[in-house]
Amino acid sequence: MMQRFLETENPVFLFPSSGTGFMEASVRNCVEKKMLCCVCGEFGERFSEAATSNGRELEKIKMPLGEPVTPDLLDDTLKRIPDVEAVSITHNETSIGLINPLRELAEVVKKHGKLLFVDAVSSMGGTEIKVDEWELDVCFTSSQKCFGIPPGLAVGSVRQDALRKSETMKNKGLYFDFKLFEKYHKNNFTPTTPPIPQILGLNRILKMIDEMGGKERYFNTYAERSRRIREGIRKLGLTLFPKKGYESPTVTCVNAPDKMTGLEVYQSMREKGFELAKGYGALVDKTFRIGNMGYIEFKDIEMMLKSLVNLIR
Amino acid sequence: MMQRFLETENPVFLFPSSGTGFMEASVRNCVEKKMLCCVCGEFGERFSEAATSNGRELEKIKMPLGEPVTPDLLDDTLKRIPDVEAVSITHNETSIGLINPLRELAEVVKKHGKLLFVDAVSSMGGTEIKVDEWELDVCFTSSQKCFGIPPGLAVGSVRQDALRKSETMKNKGLYFDFKLFEKYHKNNFTPTTPPIPQILGLNRILKMIDEMGGKERYFNTYAERSRRIREGIRKLGLTLFPKKGYESPTVTCVNAPDKMTGLEVYQSMREKGFELAKGYGALVDKTFRIGNMGYIEFKDIEMMLKSLVNLIR
Repeated sequence: MMQRFLETENPVFLFPSSGTGFMEASVRNCVEKKMLCCVCGEFGERFSEAATSNGRELEKIKMPLGEPVTPDLLDDTLKRIPDVEAVSITHNETSIGLINPLRELAEVVKKHGKLLFVDAVSSMGGTEIKVDEWELDVCFTSSQKCFGIPPGLAVGSVRQDALRKSETMKNKGLYFDFKLFEKYHKNNFTPTTPPIPQILGLNRILKMIDEMGGKERYFNTYAERSRRIREGIRKLGLTLFPKKGYESPTVTCVNAPDKMTGLEVYQSMREKGFELAKGYGALVDKTFRIGNMGYIEFKDIEMMLKSLVNLIR
Repeated sequence: MMQRFLETENPVFLFPSSGTGFMEASVRNCVEKKMLCCVCGEFGERFSEAATSNGRELEKIKMPLGEPVTPDLLDDTLKRIPDVEAVSITHNETSIGLINPLRELAEVVKKHGKLLFVDAVSSMGGTEIKVDEWELDVCFTSSQKCFGIPPGLAVGSVRQDALRKSETMKNKGLYFDFKLFEKYHKNNFTPTTPPIPQILGLNRILKMIDEMGGKERYFNTYAERSRRIREGIRKLGLTLFPKKGYESPTVTCVNAPDKMTGLEVYQSMREKGFELAKGYGALVDKTFRIGNMGYIEFKDIEMMLKSLVNLIR
């Protein structure tokens, strides 16, 4: 079902881990020496840490907060540093509510013949990802984001090029060995005990998505919820943090109003019973975030916006 | 609560992983060059694989199937190979229903000043383990065994000596970094998203154990269930596989009857609605196993034994 959802013939592995486990796995299976990480915020940074903590050399494209990685910049960087084996991209950077132009970036990576690791933790299930058409080598999420099931499971597709690289990789360890997962996968097994409740949950939501008419309908729900949140924000006179055109469909990052810090908005909304999210790191006062993942109805959004109006006006 | 259960002041980390994750973590945080693995069956082998797949040199004590590791043999081995940094012991070897004399083995390891990793996956919660008194450096289990909650969580205590070793360890990676877990642990957090349902389950069972009068009562339940299973087996004229005195309290490994293979017993019992376990590897025909972990009532055991009588007599 995940293969169909991602439009891929790659095996889709079920890791007993959080999404971070797939970052570690990508590095340890597929990078011998050096990789390039595209960093737009917290989760891009985390991928860099997965690289360096595993002793790999790291090149970084670090964008100013709020800016997406652009295909031109990536192309220039890969021309300048042609010896990286792989590139990591955070599809949707939760920390600043920004979505990167994955399809275009993937084209650039493939033009240069590099492996591509996609952290799709907060995008897979919330927006279209065509794994085979876009030639994504590793593309992963975790259970608790757009699929809205409890945390404890990571899910990712791994392409032949990545599996081939893993074949000869030394010291890749036991727990996240792609080749071992592939071997068990062929018999519908996992190498170690899997998180059964989360797997059943994933199975159920994929069936529910089919029952509601397919993944486009599910993506449309995300888009519509996101549209309503942004419209409410605009009506309040507030603005969004990320560069126009790159706003995430799954989490909205809002610039704080004049009279309150982002942290104050977060805390006050929490007291009213709405769990928004604090701004990321240095942006904790300047922004607050509104998540749009999992089971949320339009009326929940209306109630949240009404509370926000009362708070800010 | 886990600290109290294990009688330790060590931090107890909650890993979003299976038990195997803690093997990988022990190797990557605490072994620079070489370790000794005590192997009595499948899970001892798995620890060796964790060592070699992470590029560490491996020494092995490999026991004939059915035999425990003895303190004398371990002592002799550590005299002969004094340059190992750590020793791994499978407390309870599920694959052959054998329990090793952990306390005595730990004494030997400590006499030689080595780090001790204890795979307590199928013993913690089923029998006493005193982490501080026995000076166990890493001691872990996973949620789905003696605590009887769904799989997807590993739980383990990590002692100061192991944490100190981790401080200077190179290329230990991000996902299983003990020092990172320690840092977050101090604020009751985890470095990555934890498997919430399993953590709530663990919390509940620990409270239930308190409510029933403490861990000795819980261990007694295991001992009594195990006693009834063995008594039933003896009455059937069958014998146990492991060496006398080392029979596991959590899983009983039985020699197959004359007229049937172990696999046939397993399959026939399955048809009757009882999920026993096949014998391990080369023992698949010679043995079958009866698990005793999680929520099992005495009447379940009676029913299982009655079916077994009808099958074998």
